[in-house]
Amino acid sequence: MQRVLSAQLPAHVGGTVRIAGWVHRRRLLKSVAFLVVRDAAGLAQVVVTDPAVRAGIEELTEETVVEVTATVVANPAAPAGVELTAPVVRPLGPPAVPPPFDLYRPALTASLPTQLDHAPVALRHRTRSAALRISAAAVGGFRATLDAAGFVEIHTPKVVSSSTESGANVFALDWFGRPAYLAQSPQFYKQLMVGVFERVYEVGPVFRAEPHDTARHLAQYTSLDVELGFLADHRDVMRVLRDVLAGMLAAVADRAAGAVATLGITLPAVPARIPAVDFTEALAIAGAPTDEPDLAPAHERALGEWARREHGSDFLFVTGYPMAKRPFYTHPDPERPAYSNGFDLLFRGVELVTGGQRLHRHADYLAALAARGEPVAPYAGYLDAFRHGMPPHGGFAIGLERFVARLTGAANVREVTAFPRDLHRLTP
Amino acid sequence: MQRVLSAQLPAHVGGTVRIAGWVHRRRLLKSVAFLVVRDAAGLAQVVVTDPAVRAGIEELTEETVVEVTATVVANPAAPAGVELTAPVVRPLGPPAVPPPFDLYRPALTASLPTQLDHAPVALRHRTRSAALRISAAAVGGFRATLDAAGFVEIHTPKVVSSSTESGANVFALDWFGRPAYLAQSPQFYKQLMVGVFERVYEVGPVFRAEPHDTARHLAQYTSLDVELGFLADHRDVMRVLRDVLAGMLAAVADRAAGAVATLGITLPAVPARIPAVDFTEALAIAGAPTDEPDLAPAHERALGEWARREHGSDFLFVTGYPMAKRPFYTHPDPERPAYSNGFDLLFRGVELVTGGQRLHRHADYLAALAARGEPVAPYAGYLDAFRHGMPPHGGFAIGLERFVARLTGAANVREVTAFPRDLHRLTP
Repeated sequence: MQRVLSAQLPAHVGGTVRIAGWVHRRRLLKSVAFLVVRDAAGLAQVVVTDPAVRAGIEELTEETVVEVTATVVANPAAPAGVELTAPVVRPLGPPAVPPPFDLYRPALTASLPTQLDHAPVALRHRTRSAALRISAAAVGGFRATLDAAGFVEIHTPKVVSSSTESGANVFALDWFGRPAYLAQSPQFYKQLMVGVFERVYEVGPVFRAEPHDTARHLAQYTSLDVELGFLADHRDVMRVLRDVLAGMLAAVADRAAGAVATLGITLPAVPARIPAVDFTEALAIAGAPTDEPDLAPAHERALGEWARREHGSDFLFVTGYPMAKRPFYTHPDPERPAYSNGFDLLFRGVELVTGGQRLHRHADYLAALAARGEPVAPYAGYLDAFRHGMPPHGGFAIGLERFVARLTGAANVREVTAFPRDLHRLTP
Repeated sequence: MQRVLSAQLPAHVGGTVRIAGWVHRRRLLKSVAFLVVRDAAGLAQVVVTDPAVRAGIEELTEETVVEVTATVVANPAAPAGVELTAPVVRPLGPPAVPPPFDLYRPALTASLPTQLDHAPVALRHRTRSAALRISAAAVGGFRATLDAAGFVEIHTPKVVSSSTESGANVFALDWFGRPAYLAQSPQFYKQLMVGVFERVYEVGPVFRAEPHDTARHLAQYTSLDVELGFLADHRDVMRVLRDVLAGMLAAVADRAAGAVATLGITLPAVPARIPAVDFTEALAIAGAPTDEPDLAPAHERALGEWARREHGSDFLFVTGYPMAKRPFYTHPDPERPAYSNGFDLLFRGVELVTGGQRLHRHADYLAALAARGEPVAPYAGYLDAFRHGMPPHGGFAIGLERFVARLTGAANVREVTAFPRDLHRLTP
């Protein structure tokens, strides 16, 4: 008999079916016992009255994998309006060791470190798995939006011969006897691939040896990277980003509706045009001194509130950051060379995306490195490509875990990461 | 004026358009000059008769990025039946340094090492970019097939505290002062996630410190990983793999038709049921001694020819490999414990996929490690999850570059990898 999923039971009322899943919960009342079985689609309630079957149920532990063959009966009081009666219950493995927390309670009460130590079972909790379903849907929407806009997916090296950005916070490794580093971003590679496909994206791991222990930093995270050529300036990049965010949220609403309901969250609307303020204007709105070179988290929070209040938007672009605070490959604003064609996107008062227009002329790269007193040699292989004709281009990167955390209201990115890696954590 | 792509020109006959791209080729004849501009969609031919414009064209070098505003005229002899006349040509950057090989010739004549040294420009050649477009389309088809079948995409750690498989061929790194390793596969994590979602997949980099230099090994490659629970045995995995391959090839035909035409390749049909032979039968077909524990490349080639001849299939499953040659997590054939519920898929006589049913009981893992004389400690975090209830499960992994190489007829996987990493190569 073909297995059916719990969510399909309403279509089988009156019939005999086979389900399979984990023992989610048992309730042993005097005259009747209930066995709740969890599968990928949800929960199924099995009603047990036969004393012999009940004796078997009493020996089952939570999380034991079982198969149940039974009759589907309508019951408006049961989950999804159906329950299973007259069951034959067969374990598909030995009795499980129950996890150190109850998976059937509405919230996981164990501390975050305990959850992370027992990630393979903690992730079975509906709130933890819901966040990962939202994550998967968001990435699907990211790709679908870009595929439709003519972008090509790429896969780039995660081990490089020199550090991508600043030389700090890189993991070093031994590459067949040569020094090498884990890539902090696919920045240079996605730029080079603009020379091939004009428009590219990559979904992949990036590595930051961040020595601090915060609620929003991971040493490995999933970066959603985009780069496009033949643009006028950073505003073309911002338009693509707006559509990508709308596509990600539409996919979450469409493909992860159950997870959204489980978490009880409200998905933000993405305005047709996301409000944008210039950096100097942003300082004034946030009440920051006019000579601040960057926005502090408190400023970002104030700007988030302002965007909500003045524009009814959860999203806000801040453009024209000072060049001093942006990486060397950033294109300056031609009208105000001390300011950049770079932007950040704030989502509910937190920086979610960094992007901008990049330099595209070889000579400009040499000048930018010289102005910063940085050597050319570590970037030689990358820079060489700019001698062979590169169009004006730009792009952005979204941190997936940070996006999902902000969307789901998680206080810590680790709550929405299956197996986080950080200063302290290398297992499981 | 909005930029149009070369492929859109036939819709603008009689109009004035703006195109942009790279100087692909110039032909300077006596009375007329031709400028061929390459963009993401293909080529556009610009006809130059004005002496002043011609003087500008004569100074352009190949690969310089230009913008051309001109009139679209039908000409059956030109690419796509149109050409551009009365052009205004404007460089979008300084004159490019021409690459060390001609990108406009039908084939790249430079040696593979030269191509790889100059990858950012070599990849602009139509044959190299076509292979990467096929790769992107194949991955899209992989995901679409699995999304439709209820699989959830996951992202797992690429840095682990102990080596995944055998301890050999791993890259070591320093993780905040602790020893760590690059993940050789997401094997354990995808198994653990079966406990959460039942059906999962991941597309991501894997790392093998292979000390040998062959045409089919890379030190980093893209692994397409699948794992599913609640199966009867490995044949359920093979059915999913069959559908995934069909989905990948359908996506290549659909989304990368131009690339397929560029390379002049024929896409294989995936039989509704891929032929399968047992390992012992495979040895006989290949003319190998009956006590061989594994198939050598020559045997695989012979089997590929046999499958083509006897079944008209480019694909062949070999099932029931001896347990001795499979990893410790492999599930034995319950009827013949010396043989496994593991399989390989040969594609045109080369091993493309390895898969099978895995052990799902904690006690079986302990016994399997003991039987091999392997310690439990390095796997403790992984094995612990199997005490908490895991269903019968299995899966497979497809090496993306190997798949694309076999599909396109590339002699070396490096020809279909943007920036390969191997024993010798860590740049660009």
